[in-house]
Amino acid sequence: MQAHLDSIWILVSAFLVFFMHAGFALVESGFCRRKNAVMVLLKNVGVVAVASIVFYLVGFGLMFGDGNALLGLNGFAPPPDMRLQAAPAGIPLYVFLFFQLVFAATAATIVSGAVAERARLVTFFVFTTLATMFIYPVIGHWVWGGGWLSTRGFHDFAGSTVVHAVGGGMALAGALVIGPRYGKFGKDGSNRPMPAHNFPLAALGVLILWLGWFGFNGGSTLAADPAAIGPVILVTNLSASAGFLGALLYARWRTSVLDLSMALNGALAGLVAITAGCDVIGPLESLVVGAVAGLVVVEGVMLLDRLRIDDPVGAIPVHLFCGVFGTVAVGLFANGAQLKGLFHGGGVSLLTTQLLGAAAGGGLAFAVGGALWLSLKRLPGGVRVDRDHEVEGLDLSECGVSAYSADVPARAPNERALGRFSAVVSTR
Amino acid sequence: MQAHLDSIWILVSAFLVFFMHAGFALVESGFCRRKNAVMVLLKNVGVVAVASIVFYLVGFGLMFGDGNALLGLNGFAPPPDMRLQAAPAGIPLYVFLFFQLVFAATAATIVSGAVAERARLVTFFVFTTLATMFIYPVIGHWVWGGGWLSTRGFHDFAGSTVVHAVGGGMALAGALVIGPRYGKFGKDGSNRPMPAHNFPLAALGVLILWLGWFGFNGGSTLAADPAAIGPVILVTNLSASAGFLGALLYARWRTSVLDLSMALNGALAGLVAITAGCDVIGPLESLVVGAVAGLVVVEGVMLLDRLRIDDPVGAIPVHLFCGVFGTVAVGLFANGAQLKGLFHGGGVSLLTTQLLGAAAGGGLAFAVGGALWLSLKRLPGGVRVDRDHEVEGLDLSECGVSAYSADVPARAPNERALGRFSAVVSTR
Amino acid sequence: MQAHLDSIWILVSAFLVFFMHAGFALVESGFCRRKNAVMVLLKNVGVVAVASIVFYLVGFGLMFGDGNALLGLNGFAPPPDMRLQAAPAGIPLYVFLFFQLVFAATAATIVSGAVAERARLVTFFVFTTLATMFIYPVIGHWVWGGGWLSTRGFHDFAGSTVVHAVGGGMALAGALVIGPRYGKFGKDGSNRPMPAHNFPLAALGVLILWLGWFGFNGGSTLAADPAAIGPVILVTNLSASAGFLGALLYARWRTSVLDLSMALNGALAGLVAITAGCDVIGPLESLVVGAVAGLVVVEGVMLLDRLRIDDPVGAIPVHLFCGVFGTVAVGLFANGAQLKGLFHGGGVSLLTTQLLGAAAGGGLAFAVGGALWLSLKRLPGGVRVDRDHEVEGLDLSECGVSAYSADVPARAPNERALGRFSAVVSTR
Repeated sequence: MQAHLDSIWILVSAFLVFFMHAGFALVESGFCRRKNAVMVLLKNVGVVAVASIVFYLVGFGLMFGDGNALLGLNGFAPPPDMRLQAAPAGIPLYVFLFFQLVFAATAATIVSGAVAERARLVTFFVFTTLATMFIYPVIGHWVWGGGWLSTRGFHDFAGSTVVHAVGGGMALAGALVIGPRYGKFGKDGSNRPMPAHNFPLAALGVLILWLGWFGFNGGSTLAADPAAIGPVILVTNLSASAGFLGALLYARWRTSVLDLSMALNGALAGLVAITAGCDVIGPLESLVVGAVAGLVVVEGVMLLDRLRIDDPVGAIPVHLFCGVFGTVAVGLFANGAQLKGLFHGGGVSLLTTQLLGAAAGGGLAFAVGGALWLSLKRLPGGVRVDRDHEVEGLDLSECGVSAYSADVPARAPNERALGRFSAVVSTR
Repeated sequence: MQAHLDSIWILVSAFLVFFMHAGFALVESGFCRRKNAVMVLLKNVGVVAVASIVFYLVGFGLMFGDGNALLGLNGFAPPPDMRLQAAPAGIPLYVFLFFQLVFAATAATIVSGAVAERARLVTFFVFTTLATMFIYPVIGHWVWGGGWLSTRGFHDFAGSTVVHAVGGGMALAGALVIGPRYGKFGKDGSNRPMPAHNFPLAALGVLILWLGWFGFNGGSTLAADPAAIGPVILVTNLSASAGFLGALLYARWRTSVLDLSMALNGALAGLVAITAGCDVIGPLESLVVGAVAGLVVVEGVMLLDRLRIDDPVGAIPVHLFCGVFGTVAVGLFANGAQLKGLFHGGGVSLLTTQLLGAAAGGGLAFAVGGALWLSLKRLPGGVRVDRDHEVEGLDLSECGVSAYSADVPARAPNERALGRFSAVVSTR
Repeated sequence: MQAHLDSIWILVSAFLVFFMHAGFALVESGFCRRKNAVMVLLKNVGVVAVASIVFYLVGFGLMFGDGNALLGLNGFAPPPDMRLQAAPAGIPLYVFLFFQLVFAATAATIVSGAVAERARLVTFFVFTTLATMFIYPVIGHWVWGGGWLSTRGFHDFAGSTVVHAVGGGMALAGALVIGPRYGKFGKDGSNRPMPAHNFPLAALGVLILWLGWFGFNGGSTLAADPAAIGPVILVTNLSASAGFLGALLYARWRTSVLDLSMALNGALAGLVAITAGCDVIGPLESLVVGAVAGLVVVEGVMLLDRLRIDDPVGAIPVHLFCGVFGTVAVGLFANGAQLKGLFHGGGVSLLTTQLLGAAAGGGLAFAVGGALWLSLKRLPGGVRVDRDHEVEGLDLSECGVSAYSADVPARAPNERALGRFSAVVSTR
């Protein structure tokens, strides 16, 4: 019976994490420009579809299959009654697999924000396929699948490194290889504003992500143990709150503007940062973690602008910078009593182990992701849409529609800009 | 205790299915034109209100009351402690009733998409009332209430026929009786594009529906049995993913456009199609079911355009065509071992039984729904708004507002276009 | 084990209530004018952040700490294993605290709607801090924390008074002290329409609130007892449905317009009104409660307009008027058998007790909230933004962005209207 309740809790948590993809879709499309909103949505929903299939077929086995310290070697397209050492006992395999599947899709979707408004759809889907098939699962195996980081006592409860630093590392690689949006940085060093086109969508997206994080962190207990879940949920919520207010106040001090997008990213920063240690960090410490993450994200956004790295939604500061910070924060803020029995790092300190794990995870994701982006760049078509498509906007040029059509279509409709079904009809 | 957990699972699932109504509201209003968005929202929220009351008072009894092979005969506005043969033991009646109630509202809301932008609100609500009171419950009784289809071994786990083909059949009848939107089809056979007015809403709606389907299919186990739920959730997710990608690729091949609306409807098509057999179809087979459903929806949309049947949101291809396909797919793809003990069709094959059931359910819904639409057409006022209201848009002409008001009201506000509370004030 | 299931139910309910904040953010930003949407979102997300921190640190202890008939005196920033008399046994403290925390944030957010489009952000956050720290917790202690109203048998199951009348009382005080929006009421007594700027957002928000209410009311059982939860969910849904239809029909009769905003507020009115008695009111009676609430909200909106009280989203009629009505409705409609054992009012009738409780809760919130608003008005800066900021819209003037940017920024961008990250950059 408790095992049944454990599974129901994991399923509910998985549903919340699945819903995060609606949050990502809204945040990314809302923060991008109006002319690219349809393409962003296509990418974000498509990531879920691609990652779902690929992770079921291959990624899950590499991550949780019985293997060695580097990767799993069985459990590909597994049958429902298969037993794996890294899968919790008493939980039906497909329940566990589905929970892990929605995590894998999260890591992939982080990349889409950083390369938005200029990446080719097909290239992005190829990247997503390979990232969900190999990059994320292998690093995941190191930490959660019984691999070498787990045996060193590296502590990443719900994925500040495994999901966020890894996704953020691949995002940074993508932003560097693809380059900034046309017109973003002037030759004189100026930085052209490309404001969010729909703030209500972005704010709704962040609230959905905040909600989904209760499943992300809470479900990572992998057991319906309320005495363990309660603190996880409370500190998750407090860190998000502190991140929101920290970024709002800090940005206000730096710029004198009440910057909603900074504050929203601050909430996400607090969530990312508490993810590694939400089981061992207390409520008051979580306020510190969240507030610092809020500062990190504001400074991180400014740093990327100085470095002329274009990240339309702030994915790199939120997921990479705060993912690394959160992983390290475990070494700084973890409650010793709660950690006891969890940490077993031999002679190496917890802080060192956390630094090592974050560097290994984020670093490998950046390196392999970068190699992959560079390889894709050499293929015909490359990684980037045509310049004129980018200028016109990907929605009209590639998707044949505008995100927000007016009521009255032109008397002589532009064939390229046809709507919903007519695009199909008109070519027959 | 397990019984308590069963009920909690059913309640959580019911909440997810309830949330699908937000998904429907967004998909339908997003896919429709800007000038009719308020009316679409009014219909979609109103359907929930009407169906909730009517199904509690009458429909539930007809569907699950103790009766005969054709309909139930008690359980109208039932007391909380009533015992019915078709209601699962150990689940409080109101828990079961609420789960069924949100399903009933789903069947009704499918119709609204197909008749959007031109149906009269009052007519639509009368149709909804009668459909939720009689049509849906009677067919539902045949399959889930102990009626004649259930005794023949017809297998419709969560409602590809009971909900979707039935809703879709009534939708087709409505679209035929009401006729196409003004200007949709030219006299020369041309097909005028009426593009979606808000893609972010539509995409969010589809992700919400996808999420809600985990409750729709997962909750239909009617028990917190994780070994049974896990596979249901996994194949539901895989079929939706394959539907999205199948429709995207197929539409791209047919039209050379990256068609987000087709891909979104493809995801819904995959969800509808796997609904009947999600308990007996394996993961790999579910990818086939979803991909085929993706093709069905693209071809279905084109077929309706050729037949000059106007379905603004694609409700008929998604729910009727893929509902029938999914019901039949049980006969094609079901896992024999899992079906054992479930199917007991005597001398008739499973495939034949599935064809019979889909034809009976969808056919009756189409026939009775059509008769009902035709009757309503003869009443004063008819089924359709005035031509000039349709041209102006239902929002301004009937709801007195625009979906998206500008900040600065006209110096001399149009009395008809007054906002929120002032509409009330101005008539005093 | 049952205790674990109880906690999981409370957590799931808390997640639903948390999600209500997305609903509030959408309803309020959707109903407000386009030029203030960003500021509304900033306030609504900020309320969650502020209330989360403050309620954890102080409010929870005042509300549920062991104390006297007026307030709690311990449990401030409590450790996870603390035992409090008013906290249910068997539920880990942080699970209970988190459920209560999302309620507290709800009470605070109600205020934001009534003062929207003109309140200063900093003043509003100071008010939120003090309200969540003191006003809500003290009144909550009276009813749910073992205080004087609970010992008199006052029945407020999930907060028609504790949350809604209290939030509404503070909202009325705020609307009175801050005064109407510039231009809302003419000197000749006319009432200028300020229509909703985005109906799809508002409708989505209401459906999210409706969904969240299943957690709000259902979770208030504080136990996974399906026989108790089933009726709560059913009557909650029926009352919302009746409220929607009641307001729609009544407004149609009064104004001849199909008024979506009235209908949406009618649904919320039905939800607020059934909240006090959802455990003791039957399904048929709940239809009456909801329908009456629908009328109350329409008349309430008109009354406020006559009184020249400006409440941009209808928060006062929905939460204060219907909160009081719902509290009193317990005395009118409660099922005697179900109440038996619950009510123990000595010689005083239930109806009198309900009137007393609603008056005490709503009245104190109005009085103390009003005193607080008046005090804030005397501080430097006051409670209200500059007139020119209000006319320009708070988004451009205070947040430096527009809610919906066009794609092409002006050649010479207005420094004040800079976007997302550039606002930061441009000041360096």
